Amino acid sequence: MKSLITSKIKVIAFDADDTLWENEQYFRETEARFCSLLEDFMPAHSINRELYAIEIKNLFWYGYGIKSFMLSMIETAIKVSDGKIGVLAIDRIMQLGNELLAKPVLLLEGVEETLKTIEGKFKLVVATKGDLLDQERKLEKSGLAKYFHHVEIVSEKRESDYKKLLKHLDVLPEEFLMVGNSIKSDILPVLNLGAFGFHIPYHITWEHEKIDIEIDNPNFRELQSIREVAEILL
Amino acid sequence: MKSLITSKIKVIAFDADDTLWENEQYFRETEARFCSLLEDFMPAHSINRELYAIEIKNLFWYGYGIKSFMLSMIETAIKVSDGKIGVLAIDRIMQLGNELLAKPVLLLEGVEETLKTIEGKFKLVVATKGDLLDQERKLEKSGLAKYFHHVEIVSEKRESDYKKLLKHLDVLPEEFLMVGNSIKSDILPVLNLGAFGFHIPYHITWEHEKIDIEIDNPNFRELQSIREVAEILL
Repeated sequence: MKSLITSKIKVIAFDADDTLWENEQYFRETEARFCSLLEDFMPAHSINRELYAIEIKNLFWYGYGIKSFMLSMIETAIKVSDGKIGVLAIDRIMQLGNELLAKPVLLLEGVEETLKTIEGKFKLVVATKGDLLDQERKLEKSGLAKYFHHVEIVSEKRESDYKKLLKHLDVLPEEFLMVGNSIKSDILPVLNLGAFGFHIPYHITWEHEKIDIEIDNPNFRELQSIREVAEILL
Repeated sequence: MKSLITSKIKVIAFDADDTLWENEQYFRETEARFCSLLEDFMPAHSINRELYAIEIKNLFWYGYGIKSFMLSMIETAIKVSDGKIGVLAIDRIMQLGNELLAKPVLLLEGVEETLKTIEGKFKLVVATKGDLLDQERKLEKSGLAKYFHHVEIVSEKRESDYKKLLKHLDVLPEEFLMVGNSIKSDILPVLNLGAFGFHIPYHITWEHEKIDIEIDNPNFRELQSIREVAEILL
């Protein structure tokens, strides 16, 4: 393993969902309930596929987050049922979305301990492509707000978005570390800019974030736990 | 009129919708179409009232922006029709929302000229409580992106949100000017912090932003046109 030159790192950005707290799990549960609403029209795996296709189609206009997910579920229900789904089912879908918004925030293992260890030594921000309102609320509920300077919302996590983010944070690539669970969104674009990327896999990955790639970059680390962030940097 | 000590201003934040470009007008047109969809169930003015009440109820969870508006229209349609509205009408509401997302960006009078005059002399940002994705897209379409450092999304525009924004932008209140069309969101909280607020009224104001107040504060100006920003500052 090549040695990491991390001494210049000033800002650490953490992805939020499935890096700091549980998220994908909740979406999966909601999807399962959504599929049972539509079971008269189509088997669950086909509905999942339709929903995913509609989510991707809508991404350009709706972006990420729960409201987009609600709108895509409604569109899928109408399409899959060929307009035969009742309005009560639409109401139920809205309720599923509202329940998703109100879910408790469950911190992942080692998160608070790690933030406590590194706070004051780096500027810590949350960098997410979800809804600002939703992520700020989760941060508040999580009890982690005190460790972070602020929440950065990006509409996408492409190289150009990180470029803007670095400019906005006024840091050089070699001063920036991104920690997250998505190789595609949190790691690759950041490494391409010459910044650091630490990957912490989460046990489920949304189809859209899946990628099959081997990374050979001295600024990259694959971690088993968020605790290793402190071990590597301090 | 007391004289304005504007010499310290470094950052100017512009509200986006109805300050830089048309917005409320589009919402009103969509609302009118929404009301005609439901005219069998209720007269338009009552539907408008129901929709507004549901939007305000949902504000805590959904925040601002078009996706929230779509979800609130769907909820209103189900409620107002007592579940009797057909799923085709729901589909039509989704379409109305999608059309709203795709509306052209019409610059308000004097905007580009003003930005051209003050650029380079101040750090210019867009500060809005809409959806980041939607506002970034509008900024891109508007052709104004080149004048702005970045878009700041706040989940609300209360005093505490501006406090966070100033900390985030790393400026003191006396170095910050907010320009916008809403006294409630763009001006009062900013003046309370000791920063500057220039108000440019727009011909229609959303119910939620209406406020009846006389402002007597040396950091405040009521403008007839955005052109006066340059006249006052330069």
